[in-house]
Amino acid sequence: MSKKLTSRAEDYSKWYNELVVKADLAENSAVRGCMVIKPYGFAIWEKMQAELDKMFKETGHQNAYFPLFVPKSLFEAEEKNAEGFAKECAVVTHYRLQNDPDKPGKLRVDPEARLEEELVVRPTSEAIIWNTYRNWIQSYRDLPILINQWANVVRWEMRTRLFLRTAEFLWQEGHTAHATKAEAIEETKLMNGVYAKFVENFMAIPVIQGVKTESERFAGAEDTYCIEALMQDGKALQAGTSHFLGQNFAKAFDVKYATKEGKQDYVWATSWGVSTRLMGALIMTHSDDNGLVLPPNLAPYQVVIVPIYKNEEQFEAISKVAEEIISDLNDREISVKFDKRDTLRPGAKFAQHELQGVPLRIAIGPKDLENETVELARRDTLSKQTVILDRITIVIEDLLEEIQENLFNRALDFRNEHITNVETFDEFKEVLETKGGFISAHWDGTNETEEKIKELTKATIRCIPLDSKEEKGACVYSGKPSKVRVLFAKAY
Amino acid sequence: MSKKLTSRAEDYSKWYNELVVKADLAENSAVRGCMVIKPYGFAIWEKMQAELDKMFKETGHQNAYFPLFVPKSLFEAEEKNAEGFAKECAVVTHYRLQNDPDKPGKLRVDPEARLEEELVVRPTSEAIIWNTYRNWIQSYRDLPILINQWANVVRWEMRTRLFLRTAEFLWQEGHTAHATKAEAIEETKLMNGVYAKFVENFMAIPVIQGVKTESERFAGAEDTYCIEALMQDGKALQAGTSHFLGQNFAKAFDVKYATKEGKQDYVWATSWGVSTRLMGALIMTHSDDNGLVLPPNLAPYQVVIVPIYKNEEQFEAISKVAEEIISDLNDREISVKFDKRDTLRPGAKFAQHELQGVPLRIAIGPKDLENETVELARRDTLSKQTVILDRITIVIEDLLEEIQENLFNRALDFRNEHITNVETFDEFKEVLETKGGFISAHWDGTNETEEKIKELTKATIRCIPLDSKEEKGACVYSGKPSKVRVLFAKAY
Repeated sequence: MSKKLTSRAEDYSKWYNELVVKADLAENSAVRGCMVIKPYGFAIWEKMQAELDKMFKETGHQNAYFPLFVPKSLFEAEEKNAEGFAKECAVVTHYRLQNDPDKPGKLRVDPEARLEEELVVRPTSEAIIWNTYRNWIQSYRDLPILINQWANVVRWEMRTRLFLRTAEFLWQEGHTAHATKAEAIEETKLMNGVYAKFVENFMAIPVIQGVKTESERFAGAEDTYCIEALMQDGKALQAGTSHFLGQNFAKAFDVKYATKEGKQDYVWATSWGVSTRLMGALIMTHSDDNGLVLPPNLAPYQVVIVPIYKNEEQFEAISKVAEEIISDLNDREISVKFDKRDTLRPGAKFAQHELQGVPLRIAIGPKDLENETVELARRDTLSKQTVILDRITIVIEDLLEEIQENLFNRALDFRNEHITNVETFDEFKEVLETKGGFISAHWDGTNETEEKIKELTKATIRCIPLDSKEEKGACVYSGKPSKVRVLFAKAY
Repeated sequence: MSKKLTSRAEDYSKWYNELVVKADLAENSAVRGCMVIKPYGFAIWEKMQAELDKMFKETGHQNAYFPLFVPKSLFEAEEKNAEGFAKECAVVTHYRLQNDPDKPGKLRVDPEARLEEELVVRPTSEAIIWNTYRNWIQSYRDLPILINQWANVVRWEMRTRLFLRTAEFLWQEGHTAHATKAEAIEETKLMNGVYAKFVENFMAIPVIQGVKTESERFAGAEDTYCIEALMQDGKALQAGTSHFLGQNFAKAFDVKYATKEGKQDYVWATSWGVSTRLMGALIMTHSDDNGLVLPPNLAPYQVVIVPIYKNEEQFEAISKVAEEIISDLNDREISVKFDKRDTLRPGAKFAQHELQGVPLRIAIGPKDLENETVELARRDTLSKQTVILDRITIVIEDLLEEIQENLFNRALDFRNEHITNVETFDEFKEVLETKGGFISAHWDGTNETEEKIKELTKATIRCIPLDSKEEKGACVYSGKPSKVRVLFAKAY
């Protein structure tokens, strides 16, 4: 299999698909729309999980686990949520297979093993969780409940793409219950902020925090906060959402609590989630035509050492040096892999590690042994330098920080260059077609205008930024008065 | 809700169910046979996961993720495996719900959204994984593949019990591919050994390593290795299994590789798993009539501090001492919780922490402040001592080790007292009824005898221990010649 990728300029979408497969991140499976996450891709996801999990725990959340299935009667209880997910859900109707009498060696569903009530494979867990919370909450003393769950969910999407939109995906979903509206809103914002911090500091992806318009809200939410990132092709990607659910689920599942004053009131809810979709954002923010580029904070191994040798004796000498470097790096908690496979030439190894985005590559050859140096290559800039052996660990330590920072700044510059203020609809369309990115424009606040713009341009309102300032203006489409700019973009 | 449990002597099974719910480990959900794992229970499972995951990685395994669904045509490919799981599986037949025309506000499956091919919710993942491995393996250079997956699986069991047997459960499943039979068998044994080490060292549960008889083997395996533990009520519990799958799945999914010599050969397979069932083993090995008893290695927090005070001033003074203890304990990586809730009296807190199995409890009252002491209570022995404040961290550090050891030794003594050699079938039945536990007896090696004994006594062969010695004897049931003793028991 050729490791050479289609270039981004040639076909961005093809480049993405090829990269995901060739860098050993994931592949399509025998199940329509479901992916296999391969070990290298999963190792990146595990690093994301570990950091997020730590941040959730630091903000007072605990993990728990709720059932995969939602009985139909619970699924339909919160009307808007049901409406939002009913069209694309996997439904279990039977609990047994039997030998097919017409086809020897084949199985079929046993018609007598039909479930009394169908089970929906969770597309999200509000229904099953709020049905459970009803029994956990009697009084204000039981609140807040701050729970997170790491789980798989299924949404029967018709058009799927690895990581970005798959029928099954992995995610975490936080589900919290509060005594007051103010506390629930605070939680919603807090977790959106946690996501922003994680995505910026660990994934090196700058994001804009904002609020969704009504039409882009989570089904069943009163308000959806989000973090929006910009991909290299000028399309936006929603990287995480945090929902203020009001009392909608509490009312649908009859979850009341006794207040300090002894009254009965419905509980206030939030939910928030990020998913394996983040892997797509990671790829489309930093990678290049040679393959994946990983921020050091998320790389399965941050450094790879490739020996270059002609005979066993040279290999032994190089290995000795390599082992010393590894030991020093491990002491500084820098992860390193010694690629001593004898089935591949150094050039092929270089290409593979480049494709897989390893932040730093050390090459050690016979000349290096003589000079007490190594060759050090950066993945983000593709630049090389010769480093004196004595200084290698300290140089690497500094470079890893620099790379993490460089990736973020590069992405930030690109993102900032791709936020364009526009005043007219012609300008809007032109910027969208020629430059892409976020378009900051006035909007009259109506669904109709939003819908019309989407119809005409495929751009949607990504969010109303949290930091937007009040500014008198006229809607870019209708000319009606507007008080604040919103961000439009085509989106994944 | 009363926290008082039914005693074990009164009704062991009722005691178990009550303990699981009252100690906040898990509860039944609205979905038949599926449980909710509550935060406290999940925190224990997380500790198990973390340690197992570390051990898997140390033995060269990587994590990955494969789809939740198995298309029927793949499910049925390995005949014995299919036969073993077809009778109890959840089947997805539709991908959409629609408004029910007969019942306003209700949903029903959309008859037009029937899947062309039914999807089985994975009861185990050999089929989907070996179908994937076919594309990953061309030559001996691609082997071995050493992959593990943390996942949920579904088996439509008719009689379920929290943790022990649930329709959905969490587990890990290792799936490895090897070039030779010898290497695959070595892997099978290695992972059974990893399980034994984990369960003994972390869960403080002594286990017997052995091999299953043909009738107790995993569906599709050539050999099933296992670890068997003994519960307090004299019943055995299979705590983990490791399967040598031969070339069965490679043949069913046509997975061949080019050998070094350039020939084509089928790949050799293993799979191995432990599940949330381990939580049941943990509970039924150590707990008592007061509730859960946790080994320090698995306790969500190893120490709890309860302040005893009459006024705010006392509380402040106690808090100051508590914070110092916490800081010292944290320095030694001992986890501790300061229970400063003002909604519960100390006695109620004591009862709760006892019920939840916290290994050590510190109580600090005004007298303690005067004397510069604290009261320290052990959960495993229910004994108390007064400890000088200066010595508290070192005493705790030692005690946690002692408790971990004590729990293991206590369980080991019990287990060893409950392995009985018997020579006649009358003796067999008597020991089984009066004493329970493992019965070590000769068996003629036939399915018929095994089946007959099961029918007459409900005891099954738990395993042929790996360390059993050859010994001439006569089958306890048929009198036919036998070379080795096997272990019988009633089992969970």
